[in-house]
Amino acid sequence: MVGGGQGAFIGAVHRIASRIDDRFELVAGAFSSTPEKSKASAKELGVADDRAYGTYEEMAKAEAARDDGIDAVSIVTPNHMHAGPAIAFLEAGINVICDKPLTVNSEEAAKMKAAIEKSSAKFILTHNYTGYPLIRQARQMIANGDLGKIRLIQAEYAQDWMADVPDPDNKQAAWRTDPARSGGGGAIGDIGTHALNLATFVSGLSPEALLADLDSFVDGRQVDDNAHVLLRLSGGAKGMLWCSQVAVGSENSLTLRVYGETGGIEWAQENPNRMTFTKFGEPKQIITRGGAGLGGGAGDWTRIPPGHPEGYLEGFANVYTDAADLIQGKSDGALLPGIDAGMEGIWFIEACIESSKNGGTWVSR
Amino acid sequence: MVGGGQGAFIGAVHRIASRIDDRFELVAGAFSSTPEKSKASAKELGVADDRAYGTYEEMAKAEAARDDGIDAVSIVTPNHMHAGPAIAFLEAGINVICDKPLTVNSEEAAKMKAAIEKSSAKFILTHNYTGYPLIRQARQMIANGDLGKIRLIQAEYAQDWMADVPDPDNKQAAWRTDPARSGGGGAIGDIGTHALNLATFVSGLSPEALLADLDSFVDGRQVDDNAHVLLRLSGGAKGMLWCSQVAVGSENSLTLRVYGETGGIEWAQENPNRMTFTKFGEPKQIITRGGAGLGGGAGDWTRIPPGHPEGYLEGFANVYTDAADLIQGKSDGALLPGIDAGMEGIWFIEACIESSKNGGTWVSR
Amino acid sequence: MVGGGQGAFIGAVHRIASRIDDRFELVAGAFSSTPEKSKASAKELGVADDRAYGTYEEMAKAEAARDDGIDAVSIVTPNHMHAGPAIAFLEAGINVICDKPLTVNSEEAAKMKAAIEKSSAKFILTHNYTGYPLIRQARQMIANGDLGKIRLIQAEYAQDWMADVPDPDNKQAAWRTDPARSGGGGAIGDIGTHALNLATFVSGLSPEALLADLDSFVDGRQVDDNAHVLLRLSGGAKGMLWCSQVAVGSENSLTLRVYGETGGIEWAQENPNRMTFTKFGEPKQIITRGGAGLGGGAGDWTRIPPGHPEGYLEGFANVYTDAADLIQGKSDGALLPGIDAGMEGIWFIEACIESSKNGGTWVSR
Amino acid sequence: MVGGGQGAFIGAVHRIASRIDDRFELVAGAFSSTPEKSKASAKELGVADDRAYGTYEEMAKAEAARDDGIDAVSIVTPNHMHAGPAIAFLEAGINVICDKPLTVNSEEAAKMKAAIEKSSAKFILTHNYTGYPLIRQARQMIANGDLGKIRLIQAEYAQDWMADVPDPDNKQAAWRTDPARSGGGGAIGDIGTHALNLATFVSGLSPEALLADLDSFVDGRQVDDNAHVLLRLSGGAKGMLWCSQVAVGSENSLTLRVYGETGGIEWAQENPNRMTFTKFGEPKQIITRGGAGLGGGAGDWTRIPPGHPEGYLEGFANVYTDAADLIQGKSDGALLPGIDAGMEGIWFIEACIESSKNGGTWVSR
Repeated sequence: MVGGGQGAFIGAVHRIASRIDDRFELVAGAFSSTPEKSKASAKELGVADDRAYGTYEEMAKAEAARDDGIDAVSIVTPNHMHAGPAIAFLEAGINVICDKPLTVNSEEAAKMKAAIEKSSAKFILTHNYTGYPLIRQARQMIANGDLGKIRLIQAEYAQDWMADVPDPDNKQAAWRTDPARSGGGGAIGDIGTHALNLATFVSGLSPEALLADLDSFVDGRQVDDNAHVLLRLSGGAKGMLWCSQVAVGSENSLTLRVYGETGGIEWAQENPNRMTFTKFGEPKQIITRGGAGLGGGAGDWTRIPPGHPEGYLEGFANVYTDAADLIQGKSDGALLPGIDAGMEGIWFIEACIESSKNGGTWVSR
Repeated sequence: MVGGGQGAFIGAVHRIASRIDDRFELVAGAFSSTPEKSKASAKELGVADDRAYGTYEEMAKAEAARDDGIDAVSIVTPNHMHAGPAIAFLEAGINVICDKPLTVNSEEAAKMKAAIEKSSAKFILTHNYTGYPLIRQARQMIANGDLGKIRLIQAEYAQDWMADVPDPDNKQAAWRTDPARSGGGGAIGDIGTHALNLATFVSGLSPEALLADLDSFVDGRQVDDNAHVLLRLSGGAKGMLWCSQVAVGSENSLTLRVYGETGGIEWAQENPNRMTFTKFGEPKQIITRGGAGLGGGAGDWTRIPPGHPEGYLEGFANVYTDAADLIQGKSDGALLPGIDAGMEGIWFIEACIESSKNGGTWVSR
Repeated sequence: MVGGGQGAFIGAVHRIASRIDDRFELVAGAFSSTPEKSKASAKELGVADDRAYGTYEEMAKAEAARDDGIDAVSIVTPNHMHAGPAIAFLEAGINVICDKPLTVNSEEAAKMKAAIEKSSAKFILTHNYTGYPLIRQARQMIANGDLGKIRLIQAEYAQDWMADVPDPDNKQAAWRTDPARSGGGGAIGDIGTHALNLATFVSGLSPEALLADLDSFVDGRQVDDNAHVLLRLSGGAKGMLWCSQVAVGSENSLTLRVYGETGGIEWAQENPNRMTFTKFGEPKQIITRGGAGLGGGAGDWTRIPPGHPEGYLEGFANVYTDAADLIQGKSDGALLPGIDAGMEGIWFIEACIESSKNGGTWVSR
Repeated sequence: MVGGGQGAFIGAVHRIASRIDDRFELVAGAFSSTPEKSKASAKELGVADDRAYGTYEEMAKAEAARDDGIDAVSIVTPNHMHAGPAIAFLEAGINVICDKPLTVNSEEAAKMKAAIEKSSAKFILTHNYTGYPLIRQARQMIANGDLGKIRLIQAEYAQDWMADVPDPDNKQAAWRTDPARSGGGGAIGDIGTHALNLATFVSGLSPEALLADLDSFVDGRQVDDNAHVLLRLSGGAKGMLWCSQVAVGSENSLTLRVYGETGGIEWAQENPNRMTFTKFGEPKQIITRGGAGLGGGAGDWTRIPPGHPEGYLEGFANVYTDAADLIQGKSDGALLPGIDAGMEGIWFIEACIESSKNGGTWVSR
């Protein structure tokens, strides 16, 4: 692991996710920006002192040289610290599991892409919401034609934790609102990219143009905290994407609705174990994770019977478990987000910023 | 009543709404386009034969001349037939209750406005969703500052009854998809104006600019059946408005969410007896129609105790009952939509069409 | 109307319900216990002074003698005042629409039954919840065998308005907690009878035995405010019925769940426009009032399209409209509750009290 | 681990639960009834061959003798195989984490209790639903008096997987419907004990008497598949408990509602991240896991921010993590169910059977 030392949030999530199905063991890390802090975190995490590194460069080199070196590295640093370690490990032939968004701009993204193409190692981007069983079920249903040709996608990701000026001690808020570390985007990078990724993952469509109206409602904020985005997608479908960190009363309200010529689906992350599906002219159905009458689908990526809720960590674990299968050659990783999803996300961030700077104009891809 | 003869939908709704609180009696009408049909409908409705008129002009003249002439007329014709009768009755000094949208274009709207200004009679536009008790409660709460300064409005009105080519015998679909009778707008006029009206009624804000991406997804359709609209509102607030008649699985899904600096509310028409309200940093509350702990508000416009659901007809009845109060001088009708709401709606329709024709550009008001 | 004068609750509900479909006109009444109050109420309600009676006996006699006498009387008095007027009007040959429960004890119930059998007039008991379209749909589905043989019924009616000692000015609470006027039952009579009626109406089963544990949780209360009841029903089905007026957070939470060998349904009065239906081994369906894919059923008893919510008053109106059809010979009133439902309710009240007095033992019917 | 070999369900759940917070490592086991199968399972689970035992007796002896012997054993066998291993490990001084219900009858339960009292080791019963953060929050709120004196508990646990004769290959169904292995109870033991435990854990009350009406609706079934139970609890509170395995449309619908003199709460396991709380006379609040405005409580037992759903496995993990704390002396395990909860459950099963055999009579504790 690179990053994820004391006080971090997403690092702990990655560790649990990797552990749930018992496919990974944490044995080495460059957990923090100084060797001392890195070793202190290693101690807490049960990592041997001689594999707690001060820098990612050192770690990549040392681990690549060991007979029992790591099979994969998880990169869980702030956005501006993704490209460096990713490239270093890829060059060292070590598989990379990287937090999203890919990086901070398209130049760095291109370098990462080049490194991936040259490397024998795999690259996985943890757009973890794709791991939810019903999201995968929805993707499968749409690919099967259960909704007919897709016309509309309504994607939302609303939170409220930034509705006011955050506590100065809040590390999570600090780097996310600092353009230097976040990459220029605020809500659009942190959560908007998740919403876009979910929309394209499920629908199989890709964005062709967007128009964005960004705001920074909180005084002094240097990045957007709300974005209203219109999308034009491949095949003539249209989309609306709203992401906000100031929608008071919203905890982590990621929702996806997709409508085709003959059917529609609706899913909400805060209760991810159910989804509705309507065939035009029939009653709406409530489809549950692994529930009755579906066959395959969601049931393939779930550990417990329907009615026993799984959540965010289990969805995240599905990404890790699929990554293990891919790394061990047990699957082709068809469901795993990678560099393409990452490049699409970077395009989204940059296009939103450009569109909004121009007063809200269309930006083609 | 003008319109509302056999086979009509909204006329019957107006009649029930007017009856619920026993403030109106139907005594005269020009129910159809021919005298014969009008008299046949009158008979069914218990209206005396001599007050079943063949034309609205005749009716306005005759009723104005009677000692026991009508106090008010309800105009429930298709959109292109609103302006004529409205002006005729206003000129005859008879109060007008008119279905929405106001009319088919801004020229006619201006004529209606002029007629209203010259007339001693009142003009009420039945944006009936403003009659829902919790919508009025929300308006009151926002006016009281319970949400702080408003930042965001998310308004949606989704249906699916037009997802395919409608049955040719469906009169409701026929005039709504005929530009000559609907006024050029499809979903935007029929339901988009409701969503906009709800947003501005509740928030107290007005639209300053919009940008729209309209689609006609169904082959051969001459009007829009889906609209994605971005709004810029007075005071720096931003809005997103989606209206669709092809969102499979949506019956009449009108929803409104408003977020301010310190609070947020969420309401959905399909279960109109509850609304959520969150003060930033506190648990979300479920506010019920006339329920505990509110004082005044929704309880003032409801007939039965909380937990006993009221619906669409009762909300509509509130508009009629307020109209009765206004006409009888018992209230100033502050909550009743009138010509201003109507002009705003016509601007919305025309601006959406203009924006979309230009490829999706901003149109200022 | 008998009862329903100033300060009454249910009388106003009956009046609106009778008006919604324009099948009744209020022309006479004995609205209160004194002639003065009755005339004052009549004036407010637009009833002519000479048809505002001081007593129901006088009214029955006078109206029976008039050529334009009333077609039906609505009895909306407290429970102990049902039998007297019902019998008087039945003897006068005037149709009776009577609020529930039937009366205060089985002796009076037997007298009412005898009067009904002797009279040419009809008798309708306003178990209004049977008027909800989806309740009728559920009954139809069960009769059609869509659930298979019924095994289980879970019926609940929970409120909280009696959770504390009520305000002494609360007329509604006063008579309901006075054994002399309520008939000995508290929650069991006021709301428990509704829950039982709904269960038997929908399932087509009848209770064969019950066991009840009654409580009066509020100090000084002379009637039950909570009842836990087990039911044994015809055909071997089992039931659980809970009614409470002290369940804090419950406004008017009447719910019904029925499970058969091959299917199950779930319905809740507070959002009466939807019901879930599961065929064993298939996804749960959300069935809406008049919605897609059902054919007939709920759509026959609704005025507006699905997605436009109807509520308590419209359900109540269905009972009135059916009563009009029955009285005018346009239907056989198969869906209308009458004396049998009333007798069943009185048995329920008396059996609950007996069972509970004996410490919670089974009482057969 | 004892039990949990190939084809088992709950063993895998225990393993994931123990791993989530990285407090346990699986190093030894008697996974199956034969040494061969046990070793095969051990291999799959990464357990060394020399610590894969053929019998629990052998395992208890061997592990107690090792310097690096296990700290705790998880017993995840069918009910009739709980007592033997639990006593063996307790006698060997090894901490026991045992699946519920405690065992098959009160004689065995008494022996287990005696063994616990004599042993230096700890005993934890995995009534895992007590691990849900909001369930613990509810317990805390009630202990704090937020609901006032408790009057009513409504507990339900409904499933439908036994609505028909199960597939003969379904191992889970086979032992649960075999009185010899389940202990005589069907639904009452498998899920009813969970519902009772949840009710008493949250309320702090204990059952004083019960009355049960048990059914076996499916032909040939030898144990109950539905139970209607009335409860009388300490302090004068009353309860209703329904458990069913034939309620078509119910996946794992465990719900708890508790009403006191001044407040009420409602929680449903299928969406465990939210709970409603009403103070009498105020709007209902939606309390979320770790959400705004609560302080302490649920937030103490959760790994990720509110809005990021946790589920069944995380709740189960809380029990394991608390067990680790207890075993390591870091807490007193006040929230952990143990022998008392187990004895209460056995009383419940036996009293239900006795009551029902007697036709539905009260059985005191």
